[in-house]
Amino acid sequence: METRQTWRITLEYDGGAYSGWQRQPGESTIQLAVEEALWSVLGGEQTGVQASGRTDRGVHALGQVASFRAHAPRRASSIRDGLNARMPSDIACLEAREVPPAFHAQRSARGKLYRYVLRLGPARSALRRGRCWQIRYGLDLQAMQQALDSLVGVHDFTSFRATGCSARDAVREIVSARIRPVDDEIWVEIYGRGFLRHMVRIIIGSLVDVGRGHRPATWFDALIEARDRTQAGRTALPDGLFLVRVDY
Amino acid sequence: METRQTWRITLEYDGGAYSGWQRQPGESTIQLAVEEALWSVLGGEQTGVQASGRTDRGVHALGQVASFRAHAPRRASSIRDGLNARMPSDIACLEAREVPPAFHAQRSARGKLYRYVLRLGPARSALRRGRCWQIRYGLDLQAMQQALDSLVGVHDFTSFRATGCSARDAVREIVSARIRPVDDEIWVEIYGRGFLRHMVRIIIGSLVDVGRGHRPATWFDALIEARDRTQAGRTALPDGLFLVRVDY
Repeated sequence: METRQTWRITLEYDGGAYSGWQRQPGESTIQLAVEEALWSVLGGEQTGVQASGRTDRGVHALGQVASFRAHAPRRASSIRDGLNARMPSDIACLEAREVPPAFHAQRSARGKLYRYVLRLGPARSALRRGRCWQIRYGLDLQAMQQALDSLVGVHDFTSFRATGCSARDAVREIVSARIRPVDDEIWVEIYGRGFLRHMVRIIIGSLVDVGRGHRPATWFDALIEARDRTQAGRTALPDGLFLVRVDY
Repeated sequence: METRQTWRITLEYDGGAYSGWQRQPGESTIQLAVEEALWSVLGGEQTGVQASGRTDRGVHALGQVASFRAHAPRRASSIRDGLNARMPSDIACLEAREVPPAFHAQRSARGKLYRYVLRLGPARSALRRGRCWQIRYGLDLQAMQQALDSLVGVHDFTSFRATGCSARDAVREIVSARIRPVDDEIWVEIYGRGFLRHMVRIIIGSLVDVGRGHRPATWFDALIEARDRTQAGRTALPDGLFLVRVDY
């Protein structure tokens, strides 16, 4: 019988200083920082923390969700405050909540919202440094929205998948994909049931080709059809990418 | 006869790594970083850069304005791009513009907008670190707005002035002072003709005392009347303070 409590934590992080979420020997990763702080919060109990999914090197999170099990009895506020006292300042625990034992941050996830921030104009930003892709030319937002519309639905996203991606198949469902102008930024928000490795960043790299007029909006239909990574655009920088929310 | 061009530049910066705007021996300051980059942009011509006013250690700017004169003929876009290529990534030049010789960033300024960001809730933020004051208790926004209303107009702000402030007198005009809730943040925006040293931060420190219910909203009237720095609240952290805009 499982005598441990199951916990769900919501994490915000600035991914700029990390080699992504996933623990890797010799690398500074977010998972490592969270697990080290948690070890101390739990009074020396070792436990593995599962995220809803990996985020890549340099990618940020406004609401990554992770789960773990622990014997040590703790209040939710003690988990949250204890993590915030012990984790580096570029990682924060926004919430801790006890959940039923069946909960698993990765397997229970039903949907994820990603945001990619494009900043328009000739001058770079100091306060948004490392958190956007600065675009110095004009973008055709209408063509970009039309291209995004092609992604909605269940498709084989092989063309938008990193060559090293280990997922068994490339069929995923995108529920919505929208362009949102916010001040001098363009936010591209993509909500899906699941994502492949580098999928959002390859979509964004290709989308900017459409926005610049190098490709027509209908190109995205052809890319889905092609199932060939080499036909899509470049992988956009991680800097502008935020995992906004995970739904269960 | 003046043979130099007069330039106006708009600067954005993350003040976290700097000892404020003003050049000081042995200190890393924003003025020093801008003047060093400019020396290179102007091909070795030495020129002093005047800002609309000093910002303190740790204070940020979304739109600080500065001016300088230069013999070297340059296009505005070359000044802007040259500075952005040479300044550290936490300082950016948003715009450069040639202006009439009479322009002086400090003396010509007619109004300044400051924003102070309070973030509400029990958990700190990773992405807003160094850019807000995290408040873990509830705030009475109505009482805070009422207190701010007392500041509007021409008053002697001696109670809201740092003890080391060197300004000749403490009479200043505040044109507007408003509370703006934005997501989980409270922005306090104060627009005035001029400000004293630490004035916004002492206002904010006192305002949070009102928000917590430690002082009544009418306290601000008494503080203006008192002309005594020791009666006002503490000086708020520089982290949450942004110079948003300077008008000419």
